[in-house]
Amino acid sequence: MATNDGSASSLLPPTRLEAFSDAVFAIAITLLVLELEVPDGATSLLEHLGQEWPSYLGYFVSFASIGGVWIAHSTLTRFTKATDQVLLGLNLVLLLLVSFLPFTTNVLADHLSDVGEHVAVVVFGINLTLTSVMVNAMFGYVARTEGLADPASEQELRDFGRERRIAVVIQAVATVVGFILPTAAVLTYLAISLLLVVDPIWQAQRAKRRAQKGR
Amino acid sequence: MATNDGSASSLLPPTRLEAFSDAVFAIAITLLVLELEVPDGATSLLEHLGQEWPSYLGYFVSFASIGGVWIAHSTLTRFTKATDQVLLGLNLVLLLLVSFLPFTTNVLADHLSDVGEHVAVVVFGINLTLTSVMVNAMFGYVARTEGLADPASEQELRDFGRERRIAVVIQAVATVVGFILPTAAVLTYLAISLLLVVDPIWQAQRAKRRAQKGR
Amino acid sequence: MATNDGSASSLLPPTRLEAFSDAVFAIAITLLVLELEVPDGATSLLEHLGQEWPSYLGYFVSFASIGGVWIAHSTLTRFTKATDQVLLGLNLVLLLLVSFLPFTTNVLADHLSDVGEHVAVVVFGINLTLTSVMVNAMFGYVARTEGLADPASEQELRDFGRERRIAVVIQAVATVVGFILPTAAVLTYLAISLLLVVDPIWQAQRAKRRAQKGR
Amino acid sequence: MATNDGSASSLLPPTRLEAFSDAVFAIAITLLVLELEVPDGATSLLEHLGQEWPSYLGYFVSFASIGGVWIAHSTLTRFTKATDQVLLGLNLVLLLLVSFLPFTTNVLADHLSDVGEHVAVVVFGINLTLTSVMVNAMFGYVARTEGLADPASEQELRDFGRERRIAVVIQAVATVVGFILPTAAVLTYLAISLLLVVDPIWQAQRAKRRAQKGR
Repeated sequence: MATNDGSASSLLPPTRLEAFSDAVFAIAITLLVLELEVPDGATSLLEHLGQEWPSYLGYFVSFASIGGVWIAHSTLTRFTKATDQVLLGLNLVLLLLVSFLPFTTNVLADHLSDVGEHVAVVVFGINLTLTSVMVNAMFGYVARTEGLADPASEQELRDFGRERRIAVVIQAVATVVGFILPTAAVLTYLAISLLLVVDPIWQAQRAKRRAQKGR
Repeated sequence: MATNDGSASSLLPPTRLEAFSDAVFAIAITLLVLELEVPDGATSLLEHLGQEWPSYLGYFVSFASIGGVWIAHSTLTRFTKATDQVLLGLNLVLLLLVSFLPFTTNVLADHLSDVGEHVAVVVFGINLTLTSVMVNAMFGYVARTEGLADPASEQELRDFGRERRIAVVIQAVATVVGFILPTAAVLTYLAISLLLVVDPIWQAQRAKRRAQKGR
Repeated sequence: MATNDGSASSLLPPTRLEAFSDAVFAIAITLLVLELEVPDGATSLLEHLGQEWPSYLGYFVSFASIGGVWIAHSTLTRFTKATDQVLLGLNLVLLLLVSFLPFTTNVLADHLSDVGEHVAVVVFGINLTLTSVMVNAMFGYVARTEGLADPASEQELRDFGRERRIAVVIQAVATVVGFILPTAAVLTYLAISLLLVVDPIWQAQRAKRRAQKGR
Repeated sequence: MATNDGSASSLLPPTRLEAFSDAVFAIAITLLVLELEVPDGATSLLEHLGQEWPSYLGYFVSFASIGGVWIAHSTLTRFTKATDQVLLGLNLVLLLLVSFLPFTTNVLADHLSDVGEHVAVVVFGINLTLTSVMVNAMFGYVARTEGLADPASEQELRDFGRERRIAVVIQAVATVVGFILPTAAVLTYLAISLLLVVDPIWQAQRAKRRAQKGR
């Protein structure tokens, strides 16, 4: 459709960007389960959980992180009525960082409560922060570029962008703090990720209430 | 479309929720095949099957379970004409539980017919029951929330919800029973999963017959 | 849409069946690459290829087989304008068999040119034949059931069904023959799979030529 | 839709080709992360990076390569309004080559800076070049075949085809050069892949400027 008039020929419908991204997100979010070690018969399950809790925590942090990025990504494409080549390129960089998260989570899970903890936490934090930065870069690009954003949702797009910037700052601070207090950093990563899932729900509820008052 | 009027701006079309969920379901349902051990040349295939039957049974139980959840999920999105942020959040929790099923199935397959059997059966049962509970929570949320359910299918939605509640109760009971009679519990899981695949077929046939009589 | 009139309420659009199936097919078709062993530095690549050719052949046979089933499946959904619960159930059984193919291919690749060859070839052949049988069962169900098939393509549907039945017979015969002549069976599997990819191309060309003459 | 008139009955909408391809691309692009070794506690992270840099470089080259092919593929389907059986067949061959890239990348990563380097670089280069050749074959087929290409984008299709041919020639030359200068070849693969992601962006910018002047 977008290709029918010459001037807009570089715009394309966002369907393939969405489908490809959804598949990459889905693989990244489920890959980690392959890394969980099945307890053998000798140790009891409770003992096993006592030893392997960093793996389970890592799985959960990674799931929440990727889930949070997916929510942001689907919010973005909701506001987007067309994509262009630049957005496809930015999206590829985002997916590179997302598909790297299972690996850095793994590094994190293997080193929690040992001597390499500090480095592992920082590596994971850098990966997570860069992912958030890329999501924001995509938001910024869509907001700035004529013809990409859905005009009806400009206000929402700006609100969402502000929130996302706060998230990036907290993640970056947590990454730096992780160098000294690794456990605090992991808990902060988890908290932000959960917040990024829960906050849109609060936002939506508030928007609904505002709309009801406005009637 | 849903974003064009201010008051409904928090509603979004269910396409991305469907695509992302389909990919996660697909990965979860096929991952387990990676865990099946290829018999080596020394043992005959029949001997191998004799030793490895818990893996094959686990693969089948897991496939049927995830297949049953997928059927329920696609029934749900058939009744749903829009999603909101809460439904996305509930869906993420459901997918977390679904992507965990290959792992708990693995625990189950590795411990069937050994001393850890009781714990393994209960862990798998809890995973399966929680998954069913989340499906029902999503059904309940769609039924209760204005603007999400397709008005034409309200009766069906209620019927489906009732059935699903029965399934949850049976799965929960089987999990408790699994502590004493692990094999009975596994067979019950399998039976319920098969029923959840087969029952919608019966339902559909009955609905068709009713419709034909009504003419 | 299909849910708006009571009598057809059990029919649903085929979008989710397609999306879920595509993801399972895609995973099954790419999983096998994980099993290919990376040659180490000690042996030269040519030596490695000399030893590992059954793996590469297995990869290729499996890719061609799953590719052929995918072509048949997408031809089927092209002829299908709605799905019902029975078709979803048949499709799940098909996907179970498809997701099992990487495993039986693996068994095949590990045992080509050793003593277990006969059994491995037969196991793979049974998997492949059952997969074909399920595709045909789905074709038959769509053709028989009111409201599923696209009326414009009934003739094509019948032609395709006839062809598919021949493929099943050849695969079944190859499986039996595999017991005595395993290598011949593998080559037959490969030939049929390639044929199932190439034949629709021939069919399409012929149909085009017929249409041009008919003008 | 395309099936409603007899003469065009062999044409089908490109939705399933896109969905299936997106899933295969997504799996191929994320599989490699499974091969990255998690550093253990004994070595410091910096030491580990010093030893494992070929793996990380391989991951990045492979991501950029598959990303570049995906961009080309989505450009192709943007220009395509219908597919036929031949295009499905060509697409399957392309996906076979794409799903093989994680394996040849792995061979490359394992052999960079050892004695098998030359062969590994050439094997990867052949895989990459053949993938590009197949993309071009699909472009050529769509351009030549009546009813497949979107008439509005014929000029763009030809421009894109010219560019792609240059990319194939450079990749083929790099492959041959790789026999003598393996490191130069790897850097060339990386450069071309990045160019194939970045160039469409430049193209789009230029087209936009041209369109603005033309007003």
